[in-house]
Order: sequence, then C-alpha cells, then structure tokens
Amino acid sequence: MTVKLVSHANLTTACAADVRAAIRNGSYDGHTAGLAAGKLQCNLAILPDRFALDFLRFCQRNPKPCPIVGVSNTGDPSLPTLGRDIDIRTDVSKYRVFRNGELSEEVTDICDVWSDDLVTVALGCSFTFENALLRNGIPVRHIETSKNVPMFRTNIDLVPAGKFGGQMVVTMRPIPADQVAQASEICSRFPQAHGAPIAVGDPAQIGISDLSQPDWGDAVDIRAGEVPVYWACGVTPQNVLLAAGLPICITHSPGHMLVSDVAEDAETTILTTN
Amino acid sequence: MTVKLVSHANLTTACAADVRAAIRNGSYDGHTAGLAAGKLQCNLAILPDRFALDFLRFCQRNPKPCPIVGVSNTGDPSLPTLGRDIDIRTDVSKYRVFRNGELSEEVTDICDVWSDDLVTVALGCSFTFENALLRNGIPVRHIETSKNVPMFRTNIDLVPAGKFGGQMVVTMRPIPADQVAQASEICSRFPQAHGAPIAVGDPAQIGISDLSQPDWGDAVDIRAGEVPVYWACGVTPQNVLLAAGLPICITHSPGHMLVSDVAEDAETTILTTN
Repeated sequence: MTVKLVSHANLTTACAADVRAAIRNGSYDGHTAGLAAGKLQCNLAILPDRFALDFLRFCQRNPKPCPIVGVSNTGDPSLPTLGRDIDIRTDVSKYRVFRNGELSEEVTDICDVWSDDLVTVALGCSFTFENALLRNGIPVRHIETSKNVPMFRTNIDLVPAGKFGGQMVVTMRPIPADQVAQASEICSRFPQAHGAPIAVGDPAQIGISDLSQPDWGDAVDIRAGEVPVYWACGVTPQNVLLAAGLPICITHSPGHMLVSDVAEDAETTILTTN
Repeated sequence: MTVKLVSHANLTTACAADVRAAIRNGSYDGHTAGLAAGKLQCNLAILPDRFALDFLRFCQRNPKPCPIVGVSNTGDPSLPTLGRDIDIRTDVSKYRVFRNGELSEEVTDICDVWSDDLVTVALGCSFTFENALLRNGIPVRHIETSKNVPMFRTNIDLVPAGKFGGQMVVTMRPIPADQVAQASEICSRFPQAHGAPIAVGDPAQIGISDLSQPDWGDAVDIRAGEVPVYWACGVTPQNVLLAAGLPICITHSPGHMLVSDVAEDAETTILTTN
C-alpha cells in the first residue's frame, strides 16, 4: 500500500480523530503543535504495570509537572476516557523507547514493542495554557519566533515515590511585567496543564544559572519590560522515568503529542462525564 | 491514663494539627464539620496494595465523585503531602472496617487492623465547596437546619476499573434559582472537592424518584424560588469499595473526616509545593 503523506498545514483544520487517523495510517509523522485546535494534547509515559502504582503516586505528589489526564488498563492500548478510538501503539507520530535508562530507538509505532504488562499514563501539556494565553492577548515568544520553548533543569526537589524522584524541569516564557498577574490567573484555571507558574523573575532562585543556555529547546529573547516566568514542564516525568532505569519505558518524542478528543477547557479530562 | 474529653465547641478555634492531636490522644471522637476552618478535609479509603492501582485508575476516571488528594506509600501510615505529622491509624475520630463487603466494626483507631500491605487514598470532600458557597452568600440548607446533607443513589454509570464500578451517589442542596449559575461557577474552582454540580432540577433525569426520601442523610425543604442542585458525593467510592467485596478495606465514618494542613483554596493539595 502506498501512503500519501500529508503536511502539517494540510491537517490544521482536521479534527482530533482525523489527525490520529492520519498518524495511524502512516501519512503524518510530524509534530502536533497547532493541530486539532481546542483539544487537549498529552505527554505520554508507558511503563510496566509493576511500576505503575509508584509512578501514579509520584505524579499525584507532583501535580504541576505531572498532571494525570488518563491511565489505561494493563495491557490495553485504548484510552476511552481521552478518545473513543485511540490505539496508543499507533496514534502518536513519534515515540522514544528507553531500555534500562538509555534511549534505545525512536519509532513511528510501538506495535513490536507492546506487551501485555504495559500501562499508559497520559499527562497534560503546555499547549493548553499557551493557547489560553494567546486567546487573552498575552504573547508567547517561542511561538511568535517559531522556536521550541526553552527548558531548564532546576534545584526544585520533587516529592519522591518508589524509584521515582529528582528535580523539576521548567519552561520559561518572557511575559510583559504588567501581564504576569493575568497570565498566572489564566493558567491557574488549567490544573490539568501545569497550572500557574512556579516562579517569576530571577532564575538563580530556582537554580538556573544562564537563561541563554537552556538544557533543552531554544533560547528566546527577553525584551525590555518583560520578566522571565517559569512553568512546571512535562519533560520532568520523562527525566524521572529515565533516571529510574526501568527495563523498558516509552514516551512520545518532544512535540509529537497524543491528540485527544477532550476539550481543553472542559472541567475534567474524562470524555464520558463532559 | 485518664484522658480529658473535649467538645466540638472546644475545638472550633484549634488548628488542624491540634484537632488531629486531640483525636489521636483519645480526647475527641466527634464529627469534624466546622473544625480547622480553611483546611482541606478528606474522605478516606484504605485498601490492600494489590487493589490500589485499579482503585487509583477508578478514581482518575471518575474525578468528580473521587477527587484524589493524597496517596500513601504501601504500609506507611503517614501522609506527608497532607500534613506533617499524620498517622492515619489514629488521626481520624471514627473508622469503619469492612471485610468481604460487609461492615465488620466501627472503631476509634485502626492500630490493630493495620498491616504492611495497606495503602491510604485520601479524597476531597464537600466541606470545601460548602464553605466557599457560604462565604459568597449562598445558603446551604442542611447546615442552616443542622441536618446531614441528603444523599441519593442515581442512574449515572461510573467509568469502571478492575473490580470497581457502579453508579454515582449525589448530594442535593436547594439553591435559589438566581444563584445557581454563581454556585456552579464557585464550585468549579474546586476540582479537588467534587467541582461544579453534575445536574440541576428534575431529580428523575438522574434516576432519583423522591427527594423527600434520601438514601442517606436527612431530607431538607425545597422552598419557593429554589431548585434542587446535585453534586457528586464522596459516598460513591465507599459504595464502590463495598460492592467490590475486598477482603478488607477501611473508610472514615460519615462526617468523621481526616483534617489536613492543606489550605482549602490552595492550587494543589500538596503541602510541599504550596
């Protein structure tokens, strides 16, 4: 079968189910920023069920970097509370497979890696609050300049659970000083998407030495009248999973999120109660 | 040792830690409504760890009746993210112990019942949003009339997980028709405490046949100009646990909640990040 590839631009008006279908049938393998407008997108952590209870405890104790929005049954690739037809083995455009704490492979489906003891945990992502900031006239520099958001390791200790622990990773967005309070208020309405900022201003207060040298993503300019604002980041659980050295775990590749059918502004992330 | 008993009135100005201390040392065994003003109180579910992953999945899928606010390590009676000195074996004023789905005993501590495989799950409770309604001038009838809130079985199916499933239990509060929208908006700010109402008006729409015959608690008057408003209820997970017929599980007795150190209006229910 020859699959006709589609571009990001071709998908910008597609619904979430159609985006997933294009990914599933192999016609799209790009990033998902800006696709399925208004729908929740998710960070992914797939791990053996014997570690799942501790990982859920870890996420519950660190809700700002790790907001749980969906948990599968063991061995079940569906996620019916996030989307009626989701098959997590095929519906994400790029995955990273880690073995014993090392990146093993980057793939466009995980059918060959899937096994009956795996549990999928879906976590909220920053797209939700970025969209809300933009809707309210608050600029988001890395989007304006077509860069990746700058991400930084911090000295903020996470609350541990079992093998899982470490320090928080944050994203930084420069915000005009007179809009910081409004930005914080807007984001606090999205606890399923990292919530309000965790710090504002001096990067040294959270152990960041140089804002021009992000640990991941791209540096962005901080202009006159702007202050750096820091949000808990979904790279945190990925780092924590890596450090735990599990025999296997699988995440999405950065920017290649799971696109759900849940409305970004829904009161809960559960389809059947909305 | 002779323990001097204290009354509910004696404790109304005590802080949360002092309320827990009075309960722990045996000087208070009453209900906790109105105690430790401004602090989150919790429904309790204590169960063997082999059922905990499914129970957490169940709660995640049903966040309105079952908002998770704390999860202990296996066999560990502390809950450091909810209070720095909590010992869950002694810090609740009355517990119900269920064996194989039947009420076995009601006790004031569970030291003799505790075992190394137990996990505590703390769930948010309605006191939080009732306090917010009162602060905003919205009357709460059962509080005004010193009754228990009326609770009803409904026909609303829960999203199942493992052995856990069934139908939602709701509470009903009559609200003046012109304050229903405001009440809903206020409660939506408390996702850790059942959130916005799940229905308004006709009880038949959710399978309730007679509002004067609650399944638990006391009937309350619905006055001219008021409409019945329904919220997801913390009795839901208790019923679900009972129906699952676990060899053992432990809950608080109705009204005898765990009093935490977490502020009711905090962004998260995790002490260390607030």
